[in-house]
Amino acid sequence: MTWTDPACPVARTLDLVGDRWCLLIIRDAMDGARSFTDFQHRTGVARNILTDRLRRLVDHGLLQRETAKSGRRQMYVLTDAGRDLFPVVVAMRQWGERHTFAPGEAHSVLVDEAGLPLPDLRPTDSRGNPATIDTTAVLHTD
Amino acid sequence: MTWTDPACPVARTLDLVGDRWCLLIIRDAMDGARSFTDFQHRTGVARNILTDRLRRLVDHGLLQRETAKSGRRQMYVLTDAGRDLFPVVVAMRQWGERHTFAPGEAHSVLVDEAGLPLPDLRPTDSRGNPATIDTTAVLHTD
Repeated sequence: MTWTDPACPVARTLDLVGDRWCLLIIRDAMDGARSFTDFQHRTGVARNILTDRLRRLVDHGLLQRETAKSGRRQMYVLTDAGRDLFPVVVAMRQWGERHTFAPGEAHSVLVDEAGLPLPDLRPTDSRGNPATIDTTAVLHTD
Repeated sequence: MTWTDPACPVARTLDLVGDRWCLLIIRDAMDGARSFTDFQHRTGVARNILTDRLRRLVDHGLLQRETAKSGRRQMYVLTDAGRDLFPVVVAMRQWGERHTFAPGEAHSVLVDEAGLPLPDLRPTDSRGNPATIDTTAVLHTD
């Protein structure tokens, strides 16, 4: 793997999943998609692109291939690292809800076991207070 | 704007910023980059791609153009919607820290005003308990 910006964790994450289709596949895997057909129906992506992205996600350790009990179909299951993208997908969902829909416009909703939406993810500082761009800084390595 | 998957807030977010360079530009804007040259030095991206992505981010309302006090240089400043991508960038940074670095390998660090790293962003449910893929569900619109 050649990293775009090796010292930056944001950039490394983007090197692995910084592609619209990769993150939509991860989204659908979190929502129960398993087979090539599942992913194709849900994303609507072209077959050749889906083949490429599934292989890339397997190579990067975000999905693993399993054979269905019937022994016929390949299934794609999230690895622990893939499952751990949940905060990233939730943060993107919540930003989209806040900024890309008109008031009252219908959209899918992520709910908890009580059927209620999750509270907005908000970064906090080491003492638990809200953290923003203005109260944080990036320390760069030399 | 033609949305890839109009009812999904994750997909809408990816339509706007689901490109490695867009999110690296946002990252750098959060860290103080303002001019074309700032962004070029920090991202290392080719000039034609940077020009395209800056225009796209302005068109999508994530950056706004301002003229520097000298009256000579164009500056690019985050809008409120752009600033609000902070949770997305923090979630990506923390995932990258957890999964893409060897133990002890150097990387940039986001710190609060006390110089301490931010706690990991973790989704919670409506009662404040940890929420995971297994305890949440996506309700799709028809």
